[in-house]
Amino acid sequence: MKCAVDIESRDVEEMYINIDPIQAGGRLTVDAMKAAIAYGDGYSVCDNCLSPFRLDYIKKPPIAQFHADLAAWLNMDAVRVVPGARRGFQAVASTYVEKGDPVIVTALAHYTEFVAVEEAGGIPREIPKDAKNHITPDAAAEKIEAVIREFSKTPPLLFIDHVDYQFGNVHDVAGIIKVAHQYDIPVLVNGAYSVGIMPVDGKALGADFVVGSGHKSMAAPAPSGLLATTNEHAQRVFRTTQAKGDVTGRTFGIKEVEMMGCTLMGVTVVGMMASFPHVKERVKHWDTEVAHSQAVTDALLSIEGTKVLSDYPRQHTLTRIDTRESFDKVAQQHKKRGYFFSSELKKRGITGVIPGSTRVWKYNTFGLTEKQIRHVGESFVEIARENGLNIV
Amino acid sequence: MKCAVDIESRDVEEMYINIDPIQAGGRLTVDAMKAAIAYGDGYSVCDNCLSPFRLDYIKKPPIAQFHADLAAWLNMDAVRVVPGARRGFQAVASTYVEKGDPVIVTALAHYTEFVAVEEAGGIPREIPKDAKNHITPDAAAEKIEAVIREFSKTPPLLFIDHVDYQFGNVHDVAGIIKVAHQYDIPVLVNGAYSVGIMPVDGKALGADFVVGSGHKSMAAPAPSGLLATTNEHAQRVFRTTQAKGDVTGRTFGIKEVEMMGCTLMGVTVVGMMASFPHVKERVKHWDTEVAHSQAVTDALLSIEGTKVLSDYPRQHTLTRIDTRESFDKVAQQHKKRGYFFSSELKKRGITGVIPGSTRVWKYNTFGLTEKQIRHVGESFVEIARENGLNIV
Repeated sequence: MKCAVDIESRDVEEMYINIDPIQAGGRLTVDAMKAAIAYGDGYSVCDNCLSPFRLDYIKKPPIAQFHADLAAWLNMDAVRVVPGARRGFQAVASTYVEKGDPVIVTALAHYTEFVAVEEAGGIPREIPKDAKNHITPDAAAEKIEAVIREFSKTPPLLFIDHVDYQFGNVHDVAGIIKVAHQYDIPVLVNGAYSVGIMPVDGKALGADFVVGSGHKSMAAPAPSGLLATTNEHAQRVFRTTQAKGDVTGRTFGIKEVEMMGCTLMGVTVVGMMASFPHVKERVKHWDTEVAHSQAVTDALLSIEGTKVLSDYPRQHTLTRIDTRESFDKVAQQHKKRGYFFSSELKKRGITGVIPGSTRVWKYNTFGLTEKQIRHVGESFVEIARENGLNIV
Repeated sequence: MKCAVDIESRDVEEMYINIDPIQAGGRLTVDAMKAAIAYGDGYSVCDNCLSPFRLDYIKKPPIAQFHADLAAWLNMDAVRVVPGARRGFQAVASTYVEKGDPVIVTALAHYTEFVAVEEAGGIPREIPKDAKNHITPDAAAEKIEAVIREFSKTPPLLFIDHVDYQFGNVHDVAGIIKVAHQYDIPVLVNGAYSVGIMPVDGKALGADFVVGSGHKSMAAPAPSGLLATTNEHAQRVFRTTQAKGDVTGRTFGIKEVEMMGCTLMGVTVVGMMASFPHVKERVKHWDTEVAHSQAVTDALLSIEGTKVLSDYPRQHTLTRIDTRESFDKVAQQHKKRGYFFSSELKKRGITGVIPGSTRVWKYNTFGLTEKQIRHVGESFVEIARENGLNIV
């Protein structure tokens, strides 16, 4: 089926159980799909844009209320929607980082944080992870001290991933923020793998900034996301334009410099809004999601030689697994090589594992039903058994 | 009808002839609507993302080919999709403008250009418009000279709107670029009101950068757009990340700093792609669109007291009209005040004029059929006649 010339209609979510590590939290809800149809046109939310002419003031559709609701839900003071979490990082880095400033990230930081720092002219410095693949408050303190010695100045910003993309480990963000605040360093919490799938309380974490991803974890179309902050920082990161035309004398109202005026003008913001009631509800069932993740992980661990590289027991739905001593041994003998594995999964209606991967790989069980979870776990075991691996 | 709790389903384009000045070129094609449904999920285009893992390398759906096709179509060397034209301005300003640098814009520049300059730390300086609301090469030369005297340095960048948002006038971009290049100033052409609705040939203009808007003029969902450049500038504005983890030694492949890695990961890019064949076709019929614009403008001008503030004869579908001596006179006597006008239009199935406006306002006839054009023109005349204005 084609949805346009040369563009195959995508049917991954309709035809398969998808355990892709990055796609799970971004699947649209039915309401978001309806919104995508009703608000697909470019400037569709601008029909009722009145003075002061800014996206977050629009009352119909209720975008203003959505902004207030998002802030309350995250327990932060102010929120703006942005075209992806990375654009939230960029706004903060561009505001706080001067050329040559050191900026603290971590050994598990996502690449978009490095790019945001680089774009602002900063120099990234990583807090090392410990043997258990965690970023600890102690390691943060040590790194901050080392960076202050190296640069003879205090870093203006620290990024910490609430849940890292490599292991899906949940880090001690509150502890790290406490340390950073002792040095007066504001902290940006990258919630791309937490906001929208698990409970996040910005004030409880002590966060100066919380960034979320619409297309990664809020069941929204791409590119979308949010940047939340405190009253203290809102004035600075959401500063309004001071530009003035030297000839015309024009000024540009309350458009915000880092947002570049309005951000998500149609399907992206309305998609986020339509999914939001479902997102609020689903984070309340995080325990069930984690139990599902645990069940699939345990099924994999029952295959002799398999090791989990993420925290165990699981605390998140994104998991990094090491099957070098199980499925990869099969791959070495198999005529399809590593492709046997994704191929066997596909036969069972499961997709999302990179074709060819049998060594170290990731999966995400978020949003699957009880029955799908059971099927995924049993399928791994069945594929192992059929290929001569021991089940223990 | 609701498309979700609290979100009314939008039916403006189904129920009315919409002459809103900013919405005309962003209406989705049927193919883009289908794509919005098939690719609504967050990371929907990432199913077949292979090494080197960047959006513009994805072959299925054919995003790589789309990038090549866009470049060829604009007669430029390299193109990237971006979350709105403003993000294209930002990428260029962030690359070329240092703190304190003067940057040339114009008296008709869109606010997002000012904001991009401000965000990069630059100081905007406007080329004045002439009595006919045009930016001329002579005025550009004078301003460049004045700015060099004022700042004792050559501006690193000049922005020129191919078609300005205030009058919908088409400016002598080629002439202005010729002048700028005499001072070695690279020029960004803001094609938000041209790319996707009228023919644009970047090389013929001599443009260093051409920026287009998906949601304004390419029948694509928001936020979307493109940044096109030459081989000379591509190396710099699309430079890849040099960041390296000091602890992990990680590097981040060929992710581009100003793009922040990938840009439009789902419905936005696929929406642009699905509309692209239609967009390529429609720019060939620009003459018809201009004739339609002329017909509606002439109908308005037949109402005594009405003046057109845009170029006449019309050369574009966006028009600024002055009805202070016609419809506004009615408004002063009418019990509905200025609202009578939008109300009378609505009765006739026409929307997009700001409710209450009867003084100086804008309309855009792009994409209307012959029959709709006739109806719009006749409606203006009929409303005038019914309210006692003379038709001349």
